Amino acid sequence: MTFIDKLLSTQRSNNSLLCIGLDTDLERIPESLKRHDRPQFEFNRRIIEATKDLVCAYKINSAFYEAEGEAGWRALSDTVKSIPQSVISIADVKRGDIGNSSERYAEAFLHRLRFDAVTLSPYMGKDSLAPFLLSADRCAFILAVTSNPGAKDFQHLKVGRKFLYEKVVETALRWNARKNVGFVVGATQPKELKLVRKEAPSVPLLIPGVGSQGGSLEMAVRYGCDKDGFMAIINASRSILFASSGEEFADAARKEAVKLREKINTWRGKFFDHPSHR
Amino acid sequence: MTFIDKLLSTQRSNNSLLCIGLDTDLERIPESLKRHDRPQFEFNRRIIEATKDLVCAYKINSAFYEAEGEAGWRALSDTVKSIPQSVISIADVKRGDIGNSSERYAEAFLHRLRFDAVTLSPYMGKDSLAPFLLSADRCAFILAVTSNPGAKDFQHLKVGRKFLYEKVVETALRWNARKNVGFVVGATQPKELKLVRKEAPSVPLLIPGVGSQGGSLEMAVRYGCDKDGFMAIINASRSILFASSGEEFADAARKEAVKLREKINTWRGKFFDHPSHR
Repeated sequence: MTFIDKLLSTQRSNNSLLCIGLDTDLERIPESLKRHDRPQFEFNRRIIEATKDLVCAYKINSAFYEAEGEAGWRALSDTVKSIPQSVISIADVKRGDIGNSSERYAEAFLHRLRFDAVTLSPYMGKDSLAPFLLSADRCAFILAVTSNPGAKDFQHLKVGRKFLYEKVVETALRWNARKNVGFVVGATQPKELKLVRKEAPSVPLLIPGVGSQGGSLEMAVRYGCDKDGFMAIINASRSILFASSGEEFADAARKEAVKLREKINTWRGKFFDHPSHR
Repeated sequence: MTFIDKLLSTQRSNNSLLCIGLDTDLERIPESLKRHDRPQFEFNRRIIEATKDLVCAYKINSAFYEAEGEAGWRALSDTVKSIPQSVISIADVKRGDIGNSSERYAEAFLHRLRFDAVTLSPYMGKDSLAPFLLSADRCAFILAVTSNPGAKDFQHLKVGRKFLYEKVVETALRWNARKNVGFVVGATQPKELKLVRKEAPSVPLLIPGVGSQGGSLEMAVRYGCDKDGFMAIINASRSILFASSGEEFADAARKEAVKLREKINTWRGKFFDHPSHR
């Protein structure tokens, strides 16, 4: 199955555009879990168990695992295995290197760990991204406009009459022969999200920043979706994972996820003629 | 000791600008080592043992380790520990994420693994780099002009009258309060190297691409060094590591490293009035 088909199928069956970011900060997990022999994995396992019918994807940011060394790498590896086959798994790793090295990253994340998708930094250009674009069943989400304050430093520079991020989108779309290019656009940047969606009407967009970072959910849905109200993957991390710091964290996460999916679907119902809201 | 002082001290004591890139591809190591229980680490240990008096730095590209999963992460961790204190260790990881996540990468590479330096991608701007710039004893090498063909896709776009990579250099220099910003400039791009050195006369430059990638060593020395013939870190990986595929690989690597250091120093003698060649 192609990545696009799998994404659509999950977004339909779980009636959800929600992605949960497993930014599992060991300092923020419940006290009792800290004594577990595999605390990061155990936390993730319970979050996934509690929310897997509510999401279209899980996103794992490697920073939180690399900070824990070898045990963290094991937790990352165990976590991706515990994501149901029917749900999209995204390695949020923002890699990019010369061709020879990028091949190894592709091996690590797409083959060894079997993620459905990765996030990549575009700065090093085509050969740094190509090893991730060899197969239609995997997707490369290329950073276009990120959700952080530093997005303005380079992404918003003017290249001729366009912004750098527009050049990134326009150029990367030429590498989309297998329909497996996607983009990352922060929800904190609604104007830019609108522009990117216009430029790339049918590609998947990974949209972080609606939770703790304060991006507008309405705009994320309105400008992030394709014409049918799909293809936006709206990520929240901390606001769901740490909805409660107590033992009932997984239930609290489920409640937050139910709420967020519903809010997203309410906006979808408003802006798109999508089946679950007819 | 600041990063700059440590670098200068090593470049002086080993009379070397050479950096060896430990891109340890398991498919290319000698047959006998493949049966070792820690093959990547054992290969690196012997290379380091054979060359540590000839280099100013070792650079470890995480791609080759992540491709081997948990065992690879262990090899990376063991390798950095086996680099002598007096030699610079560089985590060539090209990371960069929102502040919250970049802090975790800084924790992973600068604190847990205790690398002296990292390479970073600039696309996400200031807050993605800031966590790596907190201490003068560590250096962040920011990608400016890379050695690969894809460098032309975005790095050479014109932003007003400047190229994007020049804007990256000019902007990142404003974040150099602790004198711990460096840049990556490929030896395959001598014109650009000259420009960056002019813009940043005293920062350390990490210069890959002189070995298998075919960059000019003469230009790397001439344009990469500061006015005294230091501060360029000239990296070769495959041409040294795999100088021989036989059991004598470490001796062969040493011979290659001796040769390359000598060639570099010959050019240094020609272009700079540096002590070892007076």
